[in-house]
This record gives sequence, structure tokens and C-alpha cells, in this order.
Amino acid sequence: MKRFTTLLIAICLSIMAVQAQGKKSVFHTLPVHGKYFDTPEQFHRVDTARYRNMPKNVKNLYTNSAGMFVTFRSNTTELYAKWCVTDRKVGLNLTAIANKGLDVYIKNEKGKWQYGGAKGTVKTCEETLVLENLDSEEKEFLVYLPLYDETKSLEIGIHEGASFQPLANPFKKNIVIYGSSIVHGASASRPGMAYPAILSRRTGFNFINFGISGNARMEKEVVHMLADADPDMFILDCVPNSSPEQVTDRTSYIVTYLREKHPNTPIVMIPSVVRELSYFNQSWKTRNQLQNENWKAEYNKLITNGITGLYYLDIDNLLGDDHEATTDGTHPSDLGFMRMVEVIEPFVLDVLKKHGIQ
Amino acid sequence: MKRFTTLLIAICLSIMAVQAQGKKSVFHTLPVHGKYFDTPEQFHRVDTARYRNMPKNVKNLYTNSAGMFVTFRSNTTELYAKWCVTDRKVGLNLTAIANKGLDVYIKNEKGKWQYGGAKGTVKTCEETLVLENLDSEEKEFLVYLPLYDETKSLEIGIHEGASFQPLANPFKKNIVIYGSSIVHGASASRPGMAYPAILSRRTGFNFINFGISGNARMEKEVVHMLADADPDMFILDCVPNSSPEQVTDRTSYIVTYLREKHPNTPIVMIPSVVRELSYFNQSWKTRNQLQNENWKAEYNKLITNGITGLYYLDIDNLLGDDHEATTDGTHPSDLGFMRMVEVIEPFVLDVLKKHGIQ
Repeated sequence: MKRFTTLLIAICLSIMAVQAQGKKSVFHTLPVHGKYFDTPEQFHRVDTARYRNMPKNVKNLYTNSAGMFVTFRSNTTELYAKWCVTDRKVGLNLTAIANKGLDVYIKNEKGKWQYGGAKGTVKTCEETLVLENLDSEEKEFLVYLPLYDETKSLEIGIHEGASFQPLANPFKKNIVIYGSSIVHGASASRPGMAYPAILSRRTGFNFINFGISGNARMEKEVVHMLADADPDMFILDCVPNSSPEQVTDRTSYIVTYLREKHPNTPIVMIPSVVRELSYFNQSWKTRNQLQNENWKAEYNKLITNGITGLYYLDIDNLLGDDHEATTDGTHPSDLGFMRMVEVIEPFVLDVLKKHGIQ
Repeated sequence: MKRFTTLLIAICLSIMAVQAQGKKSVFHTLPVHGKYFDTPEQFHRVDTARYRNMPKNVKNLYTNSAGMFVTFRSNTTELYAKWCVTDRKVGLNLTAIANKGLDVYIKNEKGKWQYGGAKGTVKTCEETLVLENLDSEEKEFLVYLPLYDETKSLEIGIHEGASFQPLANPFKKNIVIYGSSIVHGASASRPGMAYPAILSRRTGFNFINFGISGNARMEKEVVHMLADADPDMFILDCVPNSSPEQVTDRTSYIVTYLREKHPNTPIVMIPSVVRELSYFNQSWKTRNQLQNENWKAEYNKLITNGITGLYYLDIDNLLGDDHEATTDGTHPSDLGFMRMVEVIEPFVLDVLKKHGIQ
């Protein structure tokens, strides 16, 4: 009878342990990676008070947490998250995961970051189980923050008693990508599929998202802000929202200013994707062609004038040739982003190699 | 002076014509294609009163307009649409374009359907300009309806005076695809990127979407409904939501019933995609493996028992090997759907050829 009672107690205890595992969690805050500047607001990409003369929309967009992530090691079998964003609506060309959600990667046995799980929300504050039924081996986690919203707070939860250790940024060097909504991440299906994030995971280099939706028109105040960074490479993907005239008027300034402040830093110029809608929309067709022609012409002038360390990714269409790679005619879907990465990655790696950056 | 006045009037008239072109539009309703059955409700895929014994969720989901489209020829330079759906919320893993929106293709000079433009909405009734600045050549248009909502009405608008002619379904034969949310279209970025729709455009065959999100568990009432169709091929992609036990219990019934009613119609069995979340979630890992093992075992039994015209797509992972092709760990993004199509298309075309279907 005593043995039976002991067995019963043991069974009850293990059932309670399992239940506790499912319910009791401990939350942690973590340092935020994937941004260049220290900012008074932890989840802002740029100190908008310091750069107060940038256009208002640009300042607002640099409060979005695009490109940011937290990373830690844990043997937790469940992963929870609490986070708050604003009450702005989800964009029509975005999922709630990409816009306001979290995206988790885990380092696999081959040492690669592998997708683990993602959660979207339409609430201003969400608390949810993100991963469950993990084995109890220690793993490295990387959690991307919302692309298109301002993150107000983030806590990561593990089961009580699990190990937990914040990790340093796993990506080396700094590559600043300045661009439009496409850099910002529209229309990735989730935060980890914005193209700078894919590039970081595939190359091990730290591609930093300076994308600003509907913007990136090379305004002087923005150029000066970018030049305050001292990265290992600048990538300029800022043609899509610049008019053909703005491309002609402003390209020389952004390139020569960055070169002046950073004599040895390679600068890569990426042409605009050909907007899929431009194949039938006659007005966009002309505009899109002119944007890229003017961009290339400015590059040629700069080279003729003797600028060094400037590279032009000379490709007609970053999105392939089946016309299927956008969500809305302008913004790449994950299919489009993967195609962009297949072209941009080897080009950028080659430039880094030329400059001895590894 | 008279000549000058005439010229002035001519200029004014042409300016007014351009303005009118931007403002005056004429709306048309059109026959709906991409569904198999005639239904009392035009935008339902199945007559849910006739098949009233199907599970309630299944009936609801067959009121969604997944796979449907309208098609017409016009020389309009602008395309408008008015459509109504329900007031249900957009899914967290979908865009408002895929869930409730329209997706337009235009036949290009090579005779291929090429993406033209898409519009999402969160309203129950939307009226919007979808395409503009088209040249005035006659073109063939194809407009996909919302994947994950019930369409209540649809009108297509062209500019006043433009030609307009409804077209017959451009896709030949009928291939019924019965499946889960993945067939239904989660998480395509827009309606035209659900995998049956991509297959139709690429092959010219009419792949008909019988996908039902969170369902497709081969219930007898659903099997009987499917057998009332008389297509040129059945594709069964119904493993993802069926438990391993349901796969074992129900596969023989669906296959033998379809074979009994349609002695010569090829039947293709597709294994479940490996859910990306199943690589780390130990419970899903076991379940996902068992689902596919049982599915394959049932196929082998059926073949042993002498069934003919049954084909099994024997592939471990339809989504590639970089683990990047889903939106939420279960549902393919456009990247995942395109990878599925690359595998499914040649397999299906080969089976059609074997059966002399062209």
C-alpha cells in the first residue's frame, strides 16, 4: 500500500510538473540588436530629436523597429512573448505578423539560423505562447521585432527553471542599407523575410535596415544622418520613391558626401526593382525606366569624376522574369525578396572581398 | 481668328475627354469561372443546402470564393471594381489582398497571363480604381476573387466608351484539388498566388480549388460531394489536418469511392508539406511524420489491392530545404507555393499525358 501511495504521489507530481511547465513562465527583457545608433528610445532606429530636420514622415518611420532583434540561449521547452506596439491599422499589403508581429529563429545543428515560429497580432499589447514542445537541449534563439510599427516594449518568456543567457549580436561588421519600403520590409510575410534580414542570416554580416516606406528620397538631412554612421559598407537602394529628377539632382550629393566622410568605405548602388505594375501602366513604365537610367547615368558620372569604391549592381530586373514576385505590383513577396537576395548576396560579398572585409 | 477658336475648342474637348476618362465609368457583372458546380449562390463553391450533412465548418468554407475568377476583353485604359464581402476580420497570417481582395492578370504579347494589379480591402463593400494608365489596345483580363471570404457581389468597371466582352473560361479540362488551407490559399500574398491558380496559369488546365482551411479530413459526406463532380483528374492534398489515425481510417474510402464512381479518372495523392514548425516542435514532428507514413502506407495497400490510375507524389518536402518558405510555420508564402508548383506541375502533367488528357 505504501509503495502504491508513493507511486501515486510520483505520478501526481509529474503531472503537476507538466502542468506547471505549461503555465509558469518567467519573463526577461533583452538588449536590442540590428540597429546602428544608440537612441534614447530603445526601439527607435534613429534619434529623431537629434535629427529633427529630417522630413516628418522619415522621422516617424525611423521609430519603426524594422531589422531589430533580440537573441539569447535557453533550454526552455516553451517560448512566450509579451510586446506592445501602437494602435495603427495593419497595412493592406502586409500580414499582421510582418506589420506588428514577432518572428523566431533557432540555430540548428549545422549552425544555421532556421525558422522556428512567428506570431502576428492586431492588439496594441499581446501576450502569447510562440513556441512549444521544444526538446530541452540548450539552443540559441533570435527574435525579430515588428517591421512596420513602433515597438513600445518586449519581454521574452521561458518556462520556470529553464536556463537563460542573453547573447551578443551574432552578425559581424555593419552594412547600412538605405532604401524605401522594399528595404523596410514590404511585403515580407514576416519580419525575418525583409531582405536585409535574409542577407544577414545567409552571410553572417550585419545588414542594418534603414528602409523607410514611401520615402528614401536622399534628402540632405537624411544623408547627414547616414554619414554619422561608420559602417563597413553603405548600400543605396533609394531609387523607388525618388522621381527621375530627384535621382539626377541628389545622387551625386549622397555619394560624394558619404565618400568625403568615409574615404574608404565601399558604396553599392542598387537600381529600383522594375515595378510589376509598370508593364501595363504606361505612366509608371516611363517613370521606372527613367529612374534607373538616371541612377546609372549618375553612377557613370561619378566614376568618370574619379570616385573610388563605388559599385553599381547592373541588373535589369531583380525580381526574375515571371512577373509573379510581388504582392501588389510594387512590393516583393517572400518570393521576390528571395530572388533579390540571390542576386544581391554574391555581388555584395564580392565587393566586401575586394575591400578585404571578412 | 476662327481657326484659332476651332483649335481652342478642340483642345478643350480633348482635355474634357481625358477628364471624363478619369471619372466616368461603366460597371458590368460577369459569369464566374473557376468553380465546378452550379450553385444557387453564384459565389459559393458548393451548394451547401444540397450537401447539408457535411460538417458545419466545411459548409461555411465552401462559401468562400477561393479559385473563382471573371474574365473579359476590353480596351479600357482604367479598370475599376466594386465588390462586397462579409465583415469578418482579416486572418493574422494573410494580407487583406489575399483574404478579401481582387487580383488582376492580363494576357501579354506572348499569350501568357501576367500579373497586372491587386487591391485589398478591410471594408465589407469596396469601390476602387484597380488599374490605370493602360494603353488602349484590346486586352484580355482575368480577375481573381477573394480567397478567404464569401464574395457577395462583384462588378467590373471600365471607362465609358471602352469595348467590353465577357470571355469563356480560358483553362481547359477540370482538375479538382481537394485539400486544406494550403490548397485554399493560405498564405498566398494575393488570390492569384494560391497554388491551384498558379498551376492553371502555367499549364492551361483548369485546377479547381476545393481547399477548406483547417479541414479536409475526408469525411464521407465530403467524399460523396466530390464524387458528384466528374473531372479529368482528382488531386488529394488532404493530409495536413487529418490525424495519422484518420489518414489510416479514411484514405481507402475516399480513393475507392472516387474510383468506383469514376473508373478511369486519374487520382493523385500529395503528401503533406513538412510543417516548418515541426522541426523544433517535438509533438508536431511525430505527427507530421506519421501522417505522411500512413498516407504512403494506404497508397501501397491500394496499389497492392489492384487499384489503377492512382499516383503518389513521392517527395519528402515540397517546400525546399532552407526552411524559409512559410509565413507562419504551416502555410506556404508565395515562395513556398512557387516551390510546390515546381514539383507538382511536372508530376501532374506526366499523369495527364499517360491518360491521354491534353
